[in-house]
Formats: sequence, C-alpha cells, structure tokens
Amino acid sequence: MLGMNKKALAILMRTKMRPLSPASSKISHMQLSPGGGNKLSTQNANASTNTEREFEVVRESMNSAITMNKTEVLDALLNDFSEGYFSLSGENRRKLLLILAREHDLNRTQVHELIKQYLGLEIPHAEPTNHEEESRLAAFYRVERNLRQALKPMYEVLFERLNTHPGGLRFLSIIRADIVSILEEESIASLRALDSYLKEKLITWLSPAALELHQITWDDPASLLEKIVAYEAVHPISNLIDLKRRLGVGRRCFGYLHPAIPGEPLIFIEVALMKNVAQTIQEVLWDDPPIPECEATCALFYSISSTQPGLKGINLGKFLIKRVIDLVKKDMPNISTFATLSPIPGYMQWLLSKLASAERSGSTFRENILEPEEERSLLDVLQESADGKNAMEIMWNLLTSTNHEWTKSERLISVLEAPLMRLCARYLLKEKKRGRGLDSVANFHLQNGAMVGRLNWMADQSEKGLLQSGGIMVNYVYRLENIEENAQSYFSTGHIHASCDVSRFVETGRSMM
Amino acid sequence: MLGMNKKALAILMRTKMRPLSPASSKISHMQLSPGGGNKLSTQNANASTNTEREFEVVRESMNSAITMNKTEVLDALLNDFSEGYFSLSGENRRKLLLILAREHDLNRTQVHELIKQYLGLEIPHAEPTNHEEESRLAAFYRVERNLRQALKPMYEVLFERLNTHPGGLRFLSIIRADIVSILEEESIASLRALDSYLKEKLITWLSPAALELHQITWDDPASLLEKIVAYEAVHPISNLIDLKRRLGVGRRCFGYLHPAIPGEPLIFIEVALMKNVAQTIQEVLWDDPPIPECEATCALFYSISSTQPGLKGINLGKFLIKRVIDLVKKDMPNISTFATLSPIPGYMQWLLSKLASAERSGSTFRENILEPEEERSLLDVLQESADGKNAMEIMWNLLTSTNHEWTKSERLISVLEAPLMRLCARYLLKEKKRGRGLDSVANFHLQNGAMVGRLNWMADQSEKGLLQSGGIMVNYVYRLENIEENAQSYFSTGHIHASCDVSRFVETGRSMM
Repeated sequence: MLGMNKKALAILMRTKMRPLSPASSKISHMQLSPGGGNKLSTQNANASTNTEREFEVVRESMNSAITMNKTEVLDALLNDFSEGYFSLSGENRRKLLLILAREHDLNRTQVHELIKQYLGLEIPHAEPTNHEEESRLAAFYRVERNLRQALKPMYEVLFERLNTHPGGLRFLSIIRADIVSILEEESIASLRALDSYLKEKLITWLSPAALELHQITWDDPASLLEKIVAYEAVHPISNLIDLKRRLGVGRRCFGYLHPAIPGEPLIFIEVALMKNVAQTIQEVLWDDPPIPECEATCALFYSISSTQPGLKGINLGKFLIKRVIDLVKKDMPNISTFATLSPIPGYMQWLLSKLASAERSGSTFRENILEPEEERSLLDVLQESADGKNAMEIMWNLLTSTNHEWTKSERLISVLEAPLMRLCARYLLKEKKRGRGLDSVANFHLQNGAMVGRLNWMADQSEKGLLQSGGIMVNYVYRLENIEENAQSYFSTGHIHASCDVSRFVETGRSMM
Repeated sequence: MLGMNKKALAILMRTKMRPLSPASSKISHMQLSPGGGNKLSTQNANASTNTEREFEVVRESMNSAITMNKTEVLDALLNDFSEGYFSLSGENRRKLLLILAREHDLNRTQVHELIKQYLGLEIPHAEPTNHEEESRLAAFYRVERNLRQALKPMYEVLFERLNTHPGGLRFLSIIRADIVSILEEESIASLRALDSYLKEKLITWLSPAALELHQITWDDPASLLEKIVAYEAVHPISNLIDLKRRLGVGRRCFGYLHPAIPGEPLIFIEVALMKNVAQTIQEVLWDDPPIPECEATCALFYSISSTQPGLKGINLGKFLIKRVIDLVKKDMPNISTFATLSPIPGYMQWLLSKLASAERSGSTFRENILEPEEERSLLDVLQESADGKNAMEIMWNLLTSTNHEWTKSERLISVLEAPLMRLCARYLLKEKKRGRGLDSVANFHLQNGAMVGRLNWMADQSEKGLLQSGGIMVNYVYRLENIEENAQSYFSTGHIHASCDVSRFVETGRSMM
C-alpha cells in the first residue's frame, strides 16, 4: 500500500503524542494535512506553501466547474478549483461558500412556471383505459419530472462532478467540515440548506455497501497508523507502546475505508477481548498482560472515533459496530457478550448547571436534586467547612475544586458516590432533548439498539474522565436479539432500555422532573 | 478470485460456442443465469429449480421491503423479495412492476398541499438583513425541501435499499432489464416514469469513479472469461483458440467491474495493436501471426460489448474508451492512432426500405437514390435478367437474394461497390433521428467525440456483416485533441465530423434529400 514516510515515522516515534482535534471548530490546514496519497491532498501540500490566490479567480473556477460542459477541460477545472479553495483564508472560504449557496441555488422563476403547469393538469388515472388517457398520463409524468428536476439546486452539479473526480469525495468532506464549522458559529439559512443537501448526497455516496471493513494492525503502513493516533478522540494514544498494544494480542481495531479516500479510515473502533465486561478503562489500556484470546468471552468496544468532521451527523458507526459484531462472532464463537466501556461526556456539565440553577432560584421553588440521606452525609462530612452553605452548594464546590481535590480523599469519594451515581443514572435515562438522550454518546449507542448496562464508579480517573463525568463510565450492551427492537422503540417513543442495576437508581429516587 | 467451475469449463471447451443474446427482448432466465458468485445469483440458481411462488406472497414481500423500518429484518425481507421475484413468470413480473410503478408512486395529495404552502410564501431575499428575514428564509427552504422530498416516488426507498444490499445492485439491473423489455413491447406511461427514475439512480451508482478498470487476460478465472464469450455481441467468439488469441500477444481486452457485481464486467472492449488501421475484420480476427507489439503504432478497438441489458442507455463505453486510450498511451508511447473497426448495423435495413419505398411511390414522385452512371452499370451488367425492371428493383433483388449470391460474382461486387459505398456514407453522415445519427454504433462513437474516418469495402464477409451492412465496415477515429470539441458540436448541432475520404462521397453526389 503506502510506504513509511518520514513525517509519519517522526510522529510515531514521539514519546508523547498529541492528537489533532478532529472536532476543531476552526477552518485550518489541520483538516487538510493528513494526506491519503491521493491527488487532492498532494495538491494541498503544494497549496499550503503557496500564497493565497485571488478570491475572484477561485470564484471564477467554481462557476466554470458548475457551468462547463466539456468533460476534458472539466478535470483540469476541478483540480484548479480545489487547489484554489485550499489556498483561501477561512474568511474567503466562507464568502465563497455563501456565493455557492446563494447564487447557485434554484431557478425559482422556472420552479414557479412548472408548478403552474403542473397544477393546470388533472391528476390522471394511473391505469389509463385508452390511448388518449395514456398520453395525458405521460405528459403528466413529464411535467412532474421536470418539476422534480427544477427543484434540485444548481450546486448539485458541482457535488456530482466532484464525487466522480479523483480526490473529489475527500474534498467534499473538507468543504462540508468548513460549512459545519461556520454553522456552529452563526446560523445562515441558505448555507444550512446547502449543508443538508450535501449531507444527503454524502449519505448516498458513503452507503455501507461502498465501504470496506479493514482490520487495522501493526503491519499497516505508518501513514495509516498515524491517522489512528491523530484521530483517536476518546482515549488519546500516548506513545508507541500504547499504540502497539491496542493493535496487539487480545485487542482489535477495525476501520471503514472508502475506495475514493484511500489510506484513511472514515471511522474506526477499538476492541478489547476480555473475560468480563471491564469496569475501568485502566484495565483496558494498562493492565498487563492481556488474557489469552481463547479465554475471552466478551468483546469490549472501548473507543470509536470518526476521522472526518465533514461527515458530522452521518452515522457510519452503527453499521461498523454491527459488522464488527458479526465478524467477531464468526471468528471467535466463544465470545457471547458485546458491550462498550463508554465515557459520559455531558454529565458533569449538566450536573453543575443543575446545581447552579437550583442555587440561583429562590429557596421556596428550588428543586432539591439530592436525596435527604445524601444531603445529610455531605453535611456530616463537611460540617466544619460547611459554613452555613447547603448541601448542593457544598457539592458544587467539591466538584469544581481545582485538580479535583475530592478524588484525593477516601471520605469524600465515598460520600459523593451515592449522589453522583444516582444522578448519573437519571441523566442517562431521563434527560432528553427532542425525545433523544441528552448525552451524545448515549444517544449514539441507544439509536444503534444498545441498552444501558452498568454504571462504573471511578472508571476513568484521567483528567478528561473526571472533568466530563466525575470519573464514571458506562457499559452499553449490544444484545443481538434485541438490537432492532431497542433501536425501534428508542426511535419511535424515546424509550431507553436499561438493566435493573441502572434503572434501580432512578426508580427508588423521588420523582424530580 | 473465483475458481474454475465445471460449467464454465464445459463452456470454454466447446468447439463452437453460441453467445447468449444480451439484447434478448424476452424475460428469460438467460438474463439471470451467468452468476457472479454473489448472493442473489446463487439464489437464482435455486429459484429456477423451484416452482413459481404465489404472486400475492411476492407482492407482500415487496410492500414490506418498502415500508419496513427494522433494518435487521430488512435484509431477510430483501432476500425474500428477490428470491420471490426470480421465481415469478414473465407475466407476473410485469404485473408486479406495474404495481410498483402505480401504487408506490408519489403521494400527490401531499405534493399539492406542499405546493399550496410553497406558493403562499414570498420568495425571500437570499441575503437577509435582519433576524426576522433570516427565519423567514429558513422556513422557505424548509418547505422547498419538503416539496422536493415529496416529489420523490415511494419506490425510491426500494431502490436505495436494494443498492446497499448484497447482490442488490445486480438485482436492480435485472429488474431494469425486465422493464426495458416490457417497454419495448408496449408503452406504459407509469412504467416509463419508473424506468427513467431507476435509470437516473443507476447512473449515479455506476459513476465511473466507482468502477474498476480491469485488463482481462488468459489468467483470469474461467467464470469471468465465460462471460466474455457469452456477451461478446459484435464478433462472436467461435472457439477456445479464438478467445485465447483475443487475450494474447498484440491484443488487449479491458473491462469495467463494479465492486457490488464481482466477477462480471459491466462492459468490455477488445483492442488489437497493429501497424496500420485495419481495413477488414479478417485481419484482426484471423491473420497470423500478430506483429511484435513494439512495432505497433495503432490501437484498434474492434469490439465493445455491454453485458447488462439493464444498463441500457447508460453510456459506460465513453469513459471506458477514454480510460483505455490513456492507459495504452502511457504503456506504449509509440501508439499514436486510436481507431475502431466498427459494424454499421442499420445500413442494409435503411437502404432496403429506401429502395422499397422508392418502388412503391409513383414513378413521377419517386426519389431515385442512384446516380445515373450507377444505374447504367447495373442495367448493363444485368441486361438479360433485367426484364423491364429498373435499376433500383434490380439492386433490391440482388441485395435480398438468398445466401448473398452477389458476393460470389466479381462482376456484381464491382458494380455494387460504387452505389453501396456512396449510400453508406450518406447513411452515416446525413441520416438522422432527433438530430442524432440514425445508426446506433455511429451515434455511440460520435457522441464520444470520434470522427468518421474511412469506409472499408468487403470488410466483414460474415453472414452477419453482409446482412447488416453489405459487408462494409467503418473506422471511427479518436483524435485526443478533438474528442471534446467533436462531442460538443455533435451534441449541440448534430454536426458529424468526417474525413475528406468519406465526405467526398456525399458532396459529389446530387442532393437527394
């Protein structure tokens, strides 16, 4: 495939590696730099050393790329346009994308004319009985088809052309990453319309049938492994030994590759083969040695990362997980449990805002989110420093203390466990937004058909783990026989399936909604 | 890849091989039988030995395949539907496809409602200046999007689902082959609308970017070579030696493969490397030995065949030819001429109908399509048997005589050469239908940007060659520097580029249009 290159090696050999931020909200060359050896990315490399091109020149090449009909010239034009695009500053990219969204939209005069025509026709009977009816029906279909065609924005042409152009799919994914990051800053209706159109197109082009499942191993080219290091978004890979371990005995790593984006998985998942469902990430990442693979009964998904910010909102993970489960089951019939060990990225933020808002509201109306006995233990333990503060204030102070001081005291840990675990269950099972689980990772696994299996106390004591979820992690469990049913009921009614262990936390609590 | 299987071997070893008719207008198991080793075609094999299923059962599975939302069940459903479809008789397939076209069409009540909503909205300014305008614009885009969505027929769901299902793309191509053959018999507006929708979808899915260019050699699996034998539509492959020769020294064969239809090129082209542009097909197919490849200066395309009747009207050949030219140029820089040696399949049919209709019309109004000197020579040669007949009658009789008697007489050959060559040039350069060349092969190469280079007398004396074109063949020439320009002017004005040699025939003749 691709040979080792110096840069990749250099990255692999650094003792402490920093991931690129795949969720970077800035338009940066970062998104462009890890080149997959395809045409566009080599151009990027050149482009980034070039000076920025004249905006009007790039705009002109975009216009021609849409209107030009000579296919021979087209390839050169598309190359020109993509090179030009890469040379633009973030501000000019934004300007160009707005032009694309606004000036290469629909021809609405034409749409209105066709609608008039369409409404002028009776809906004919679908099963004509004579020749006249048949030709009236044909005319009707023709107008309907023209209307359908006219409702397609002109920028569709650019998307279609780029998709069939070498390196074009990757370029489109970069364009969409830029659009997504612009829309995160400001809401622009025409750009949002363009975004949703492009997203639909990408969903079609990246259908799972077009993707290749690839097991990533230590034998893969450094240029590919470099991407795993760069994009691992859940548990950053700290050094060469860490990476090698994640690809070695008792571990698996699978990625989805698209033929048009070679050498760069669109999404990848890391799996640990274990005797039992792990309760802490330390067991997975650091405990030696791994068990012999023949003793494993559980496949634990401990990390899933997507490499393309431009594919935001396109759920490739669902298909990846299902295919990996199928593959592991076939290869290792002894493995009967498929579960994750997942972070709860939104928990602390939610909890702190709950505590703060309870504080702000008057004492009469405030919602006490603590149980009486939790409140008592907190006040008991901290009587000297309580200083007239109530339990929620105390909790807020503990959780926001610098360096997570509370995790250094056995007493504080044990007094916080009960409320943090219980509220975490409430957060995962009850807190929703538009009928979906509030937590993004929870929502991902629930819509894939998993259930909430177990909460694990002090499961991730890394800085990030404590910051996000007070160190709690969760096991989502994939039971093959229930996947579809769970996904279906989550989708239609928002119902979240959970084990008794987890539901218990919520049911015994008072209703606080 | 695929191993040798008995059936394929049996076919390869037969001394005289008969091609399947890829253009078969009957719905037959023929279309289904050459299995690519994928899921569906193995099912076909089973299905063809099964009895036909109950129509209503298959219809039910089709309905569910469209409406079902559980993806787990979906795979089973789609398998079920395709198996069921294959078990149906031609008549029941027709019935089912009509149901698909008519009952899984648009929801027109919804379309009308959305149009009413849409017309109720002002077209807002694309660059809103305040928040209110921005949200009005967003609402407008939303309605527009819903309308676009509502105009998609419901059967789109089935197509999309099949496309991502193993073996589904091939199944869709078979479904379309059935539709095409139904529409050849009778015009049904709703089925035609479905056909044009499916065709558009197939064009997207089979974009050249998704296709792999494969050089077919004697080392390929018999199951693939078997398809070359079966689908060679231009010059049937007569035996094992013939096939081996077409893949050997001085020859090339390239095919386009799609990952979802493994082991079966969608289209393939046969190339002979020669010193000069060949004038007869005998030189290409039978003259020994081939010249050393290093002496070749010309790549002659002597056959291009598509294997999927379901891809009718989807021009994969254009891209294939361009890619093959690029590849050959890169590999063999000495080759500077790219030309075809092509049949003229519609010439005789056109000429005979011209002669016959000239006969039928009264002598005053009839168009004499022969030049005076041609007429004279014909009457001279055949005075004894002329028997009061005029030259056109004589010509008609000669051309329709059993076993092409005229080709056995030097005298008749020489007297027919002048009118047949001249009228052939007229047929190729002047006869059009909706602005396009009347001859299908001519139209194919002209729209790809080739020019008409040379007419070759007695170039194909096979039964088929004499029947189609009186043995004349034509060289279309691909000049890389003119391809786009030619294609463009043919497309926009219908102008047909031709060499002086060929134009001369038409220009010196009287105007007879």
